[in-house]
Amino acid sequence: MIKQKWRIPATRGLGFRLNQGQVVRVTDVEGEQVADFIAFNANDLSERLDPGVTLDALGTTNIKPGDILYSTTYKPILTIVADTVGRHDFINAACRSEMYELLYNKKEHASCFHNLNQAIAEFQIPAPDQQYPFNLFMNTVIHPSGKISVERPLSKAGDYIELRAEMDLIVAVSACPCSESACNGFVCTPIDVEIM
Amino acid sequence: MIKQKWRIPATRGLGFRLNQGQVVRVTDVEGEQVADFIAFNANDLSERLDPGVTLDALGTTNIKPGDILYSTTYKPILTIVADTVGRHDFINAACRSEMYELLYNKKEHASCFHNLNQAIAEFQIPAPDQQYPFNLFMNTVIHPSGKISVERPLSKAGDYIELRAEMDLIVAVSACPCSESACNGFVCTPIDVEIM
Repeated sequence: MIKQKWRIPATRGLGFRLNQGQVVRVTDVEGEQVADFIAFNANDLSERLDPGVTLDALGTTNIKPGDILYSTTYKPILTIVADTVGRHDFINAACRSEMYELLYNKKEHASCFHNLNQAIAEFQIPAPDQQYPFNLFMNTVIHPSGKISVERPLSKAGDYIELRAEMDLIVAVSACPCSESACNGFVCTPIDVEIM
Repeated sequence: MIKQKWRIPATRGLGFRLNQGQVVRVTDVEGEQVADFIAFNANDLSERLDPGVTLDALGTTNIKPGDILYSTTYKPILTIVADTVGRHDFINAACRSEMYELLYNKKEHASCFHNLNQAIAEFQIPAPDQQYPFNLFMNTVIHPSGKISVERPLSKAGDYIELRAEMDLIVAVSACPCSESACNGFVCTPIDVEIM
């Protein structure tokens, strides 16, 4: 049963509460669209989802249903319930306007950093100096040479991931507004969010 | 000419000011010892060295002399001047007591998180909810399968890296206190820091 449902328009963001035990499904509506995902402990904002800690605890970049995502303090914060893609990114910070300036020479570009900060502001969470999201559907390849390439997402239209909250959370999701690279297949499209 | 020199005892930390244009050399005294390295813009503490942004801007995990390290806002913050090792880590957060509890079932373990927070407190910088250092000499291998393994550092006794400040900085360094894994070759040893 779906309790709440939103469509995030291309290039925009969304914030919502997700209570312990609730499952959120994030769907790539048209395919090849990245969704930056952050989550704060609603009862202690100093604790949040930490992709680096999650990599350290799991010992792999390849996550699968049943795997736990960890917080800054190494506590289970979310569990992967379902995943039709299996390729997501844990190492990139959220894109931000300064990134577009440096890499694409574009000023005042929309960004996941701005979208996420705006979304959490509605829950009285101040903007941090950086956002380190779990980047759903983002296909970052680290080659044996050390070269890093951001390639087209493997997600097709309708692909999704489902995550169960292991504590009461404030969550924010950004439909990544980068159309300059393969990150979103060179076109920005919507993301669906459902609480189940 | 060496202007200042410190030996960080095994498992401890150090904070210092590094002015724009100055070079800091960090030396692995006995070999196979990781040094977690963080840096804040001394004139705007909301800006700091960001390993994730650096990976994004360089497009590789293999850095070399001449490469620039970037801040949270995609500005050059440090430049690698010399490096006798060539293998460092950009993806792991600082170890913290909660990590030792989860992974090794040990309580109140010394940690880089604590060392770094203590070091920056002397410069009136409040502890963040997480530290994301540039982990000097740390040998994290991401295998083609996605498996991540932390292996013995490639650094031998006397190996070092030199970094030039591109802005006025407050820097902190922690001699990683993990003796439970190959991270520091199963034994914690000192780190030398020199400002040149």
